[in-house]
Amino acid sequence: MPELTIAEVARIAEGEVERGDPQRAVHGVAPLDEAGPDDLSFVAEARYHAYIHASRAAAVLVARGAAVELPDGMAAVRVDDPRRALARILGVLYPRPATSPGVHPTAVLGENVSIHPSASVGAYAVVGEGTRIGARATVHPHVVIGRGCEIGEDALLHPHVTLYDDVTVGARSVVHSGARLGSDGFGFVPERDGLKKVPQVGGCRIGEDVEIGANTTIDRGSIGDTTVGRGTKIDNLVQIGHNCRIGNHVIIVSQVGISGSTKVGDGAVLGGQAGVQGHIEIGAGAKVGGQAGVTASVPAGATVSGYPARPHREAMRIQAAVFGLPKLVQRLKALEKVVLGRGAEGARAGSHADDQDGGEPPRDQ
Amino acid sequence: MPELTIAEVARIAEGEVERGDPQRAVHGVAPLDEAGPDDLSFVAEARYHAYIHASRAAAVLVARGAAVELPDGMAAVRVDDPRRALARILGVLYPRPATSPGVHPTAVLGENVSIHPSASVGAYAVVGEGTRIGARATVHPHVVIGRGCEIGEDALLHPHVTLYDDVTVGARSVVHSGARLGSDGFGFVPERDGLKKVPQVGGCRIGEDVEIGANTTIDRGSIGDTTVGRGTKIDNLVQIGHNCRIGNHVIIVSQVGISGSTKVGDGAVLGGQAGVQGHIEIGAGAKVGGQAGVTASVPAGATVSGYPARPHREAMRIQAAVFGLPKLVQRLKALEKVVLGRGAEGARAGSHADDQDGGEPPRDQ
Amino acid sequence: MPELTIAEVARIAEGEVERGDPQRAVHGVAPLDEAGPDDLSFVAEARYHAYIHASRAAAVLVARGAAVELPDGMAAVRVDDPRRALARILGVLYPRPATSPGVHPTAVLGENVSIHPSASVGAYAVVGEGTRIGARATVHPHVVIGRGCEIGEDALLHPHVTLYDDVTVGARSVVHSGARLGSDGFGFVPERDGLKKVPQVGGCRIGEDVEIGANTTIDRGSIGDTTVGRGTKIDNLVQIGHNCRIGNHVIIVSQVGISGSTKVGDGAVLGGQAGVQGHIEIGAGAKVGGQAGVTASVPAGATVSGYPARPHREAMRIQAAVFGLPKLVQRLKALEKVVLGRGAEGARAGSHADDQDGGEPPRDQ
Repeated sequence: MPELTIAEVARIAEGEVERGDPQRAVHGVAPLDEAGPDDLSFVAEARYHAYIHASRAAAVLVARGAAVELPDGMAAVRVDDPRRALARILGVLYPRPATSPGVHPTAVLGENVSIHPSASVGAYAVVGEGTRIGARATVHPHVVIGRGCEIGEDALLHPHVTLYDDVTVGARSVVHSGARLGSDGFGFVPERDGLKKVPQVGGCRIGEDVEIGANTTIDRGSIGDTTVGRGTKIDNLVQIGHNCRIGNHVIIVSQVGISGSTKVGDGAVLGGQAGVQGHIEIGAGAKVGGQAGVTASVPAGATVSGYPARPHREAMRIQAAVFGLPKLVQRLKALEKVVLGRGAEGARAGSHADDQDGGEPPRDQ
Repeated sequence: MPELTIAEVARIAEGEVERGDPQRAVHGVAPLDEAGPDDLSFVAEARYHAYIHASRAAAVLVARGAAVELPDGMAAVRVDDPRRALARILGVLYPRPATSPGVHPTAVLGENVSIHPSASVGAYAVVGEGTRIGARATVHPHVVIGRGCEIGEDALLHPHVTLYDDVTVGARSVVHSGARLGSDGFGFVPERDGLKKVPQVGGCRIGEDVEIGANTTIDRGSIGDTTVGRGTKIDNLVQIGHNCRIGNHVIIVSQVGISGSTKVGDGAVLGGQAGVQGHIEIGAGAKVGGQAGVTASVPAGATVSGYPARPHREAMRIQAAVFGLPKLVQRLKALEKVVLGRGAEGARAGSHADDQDGGEPPRDQ
Repeated sequence: MPELTIAEVARIAEGEVERGDPQRAVHGVAPLDEAGPDDLSFVAEARYHAYIHASRAAAVLVARGAAVELPDGMAAVRVDDPRRALARILGVLYPRPATSPGVHPTAVLGENVSIHPSASVGAYAVVGEGTRIGARATVHPHVVIGRGCEIGEDALLHPHVTLYDDVTVGARSVVHSGARLGSDGFGFVPERDGLKKVPQVGGCRIGEDVEIGANTTIDRGSIGDTTVGRGTKIDNLVQIGHNCRIGNHVIIVSQVGISGSTKVGDGAVLGGQAGVQGHIEIGAGAKVGGQAGVTASVPAGATVSGYPARPHREAMRIQAAVFGLPKLVQRLKALEKVVLGRGAEGARAGSHADDQDGGEPPRDQ
């Protein structure tokens, strides 16, 4: 198991040791309240500074400007961004377990499969005809890959991943367990005796440095491809419809659904459970709030939320107005009393049965 | 790889060649902007007509009445419905890859399994005791089928599908990768020491010509069956609870959730991410909007949307009113000023702290 | 196939035979309208009492106080709670099919795997180095278990379950097909050339008597563990983010999403498709409505609903006010007419183009 001295931590994190013994070693990383005397910890937000004092960690990664009170014996490593520093240290202290190159004897390979000698193909994996697997790629046990696929260098497919025929996964991309890439899009046309399937003959192209979460589904194109750009990160249980074109460095949080033929621009961020209609465009750098329902194109750089999604400021203003509605109803009633008097109000009584004017149950009339 | 002459395209699509050489061949189908000189393309909506002119496609499927301007050398095939025509042509140009009949030597079969000689069972498939697989059915690698199941003729189970015990899949139905049919319903009763599972002993019956999307889950009945009717199409990541009765020719878009014991009538359409409560009924032909939250039964033929779902026209009217709320607040204020004067408004000031009357931040008071 | 006399049914259900022959046998359980003369049925809600008369069931479980009219020849077993009684009877009439102890010859085991002789490991299961499987545990075919995992006594993993490295499943817990436990959390930090993965090195600890639905995903911790407490029941297609701490006896309905580092207290109930933000706390016993969007901590015992989630009573009051909005607009207009007169209203006409005051299309001005 690897270990690092605090001085090495500082070097990797591009930071400085503030106090404590730079030669002391850390073996692991843990949250402040769980860290033991062999652990490094970190604090990224001011509201957690108070937890430092009670922590038993050997050292803590902390932002350069932050005023923190360190307990006796704890070292501090000052860095620009504690989260970024943490990511680097974790990569060193917890290296990805090595997988030995080679094809497990139980793997079933189709004709003309090409597997780089440095790649690893696990137990019971099934690889279809004509598929190519690049250098140092890891195909875990129980992965099923169709015909004519390409797996890039250093790509990693976790157990139970399915690739249908004609799917590309770029170099260094990671596909988590149970993700389905290139499944048929949802396309049917009405015929006399019911809905008939439109054969889905397009491909599915995943770029480099992409991460795809567990049980996520990305449909192949109907005609033409579904594409996911370089550096894009997709969480678990996401659905991406046929012929979507997802840009580079996009972030798509868990359970988002994107209907067919929609384009998502570079650097856009989609919050959890958001739903996006088909045949529209989310502009580059746009942000979509969690659970938002996007029914029309979103300009580049805009932030939208709510259902149907509106510019976020507007949605917030509307939301506040909605929450104030019961009070508003009271004010309107007060005004009616002044302007129309009791008699006028009584004249409306006949329609009260179906008058869901809200905010006030009938007793207060 | 198959090819078709433009004359053959017209015959299959029940259309006519408008101009160009009927003996010219096409090998593939592609969108207008990606098509090359060996491709057929199509245009189904007027707003895309403008793309025809720049396309290099050999021929285009286009609706009979549509006024389109064809570039030199491009043939047009006039049809009633370009999408329907496309579906037929795709079926001919891109036939489903043949799977050779027979049982892969690595498949594990329980006792009394009956597999038709024309069926195909892939590598590492596991088939439980007493299960029957019909003529020309395809069971892909890594499918696990429980005891006492029935797979109809020409049915197709993609890799990593799971059927629990006692599940029926009708003829010609397609089940995509990772779908789980007949998983236990979510039923528990409180006992002294916590929630106790109600054994889920009903079945799961999928009709003929059904399509079930990737990673969709359909629970078995608690007692009695969960059923999905003939011709129904279900997208990816859908959840159908125990004892639901889904009718014929229903369309259920991605990420919909239907709670237990709900009935969905023939021909109903449920938009993406909609949620439907348990023990209610969606009438035949009803339409449920995307992300709608259906909390009460929906009459046949009705269209509902929003949360909680309301008749769509009403939901739209309410939506418009909600979006107009900030303006409404201003109008009410203006009226208060006229009716109550400055003094009266001042009298309300004391309650402003918790008065989220919305639409207006405090500065404008 | 087991059978029970009606007297035995009464004994197991802690009830009394009201009438009919206590020695008559029942072989199965079915809903009232599907039950045959060898079946037991049940009725748990007054609105279904009318169905008893037409049922052919041999006997019916019914609440002690309920006034029901029994057809000739049908026995009644009076119990405190028909659902609870049903659960017990089902457990006897439909015992879980026995799985024979032992490791299937096709299972692939890593080094230092410890499997109790009474446990069952199915065909093609893959078990990683150092993993331990307890007494009478059942690992179904095609389960993939990583390194250093622990599977408790009597636990049940259905086909196609994946456990990543370092995952614990407690005694008697059930994990349904396609669930992914310990998949990487969604953690990235921006670096010069794009988002860099934060290695996810925490564990995933599932308590005793937990049930996890099909295709549900529970991410491992980033640093520190993701935990699910004893007796908690999780439905299908649920997403639980890294470092969540789900308490004991929690109920999480289908398609719920919980973002990272959120705590859910003991006995809380989350309705279907609800979304919960990260880094907040749902108090013990709190109830979250279906499709709710929880953006802030919820106090113990509270009930919240809607988006953004509010106390349920308040949400209902706001909802009623929203549904009454179109009427409210009419009332405001009427008041404006009285107070401001026709001229004043005309003065507003210029701004109508962008004035979505809702509720009324322009024709009624």
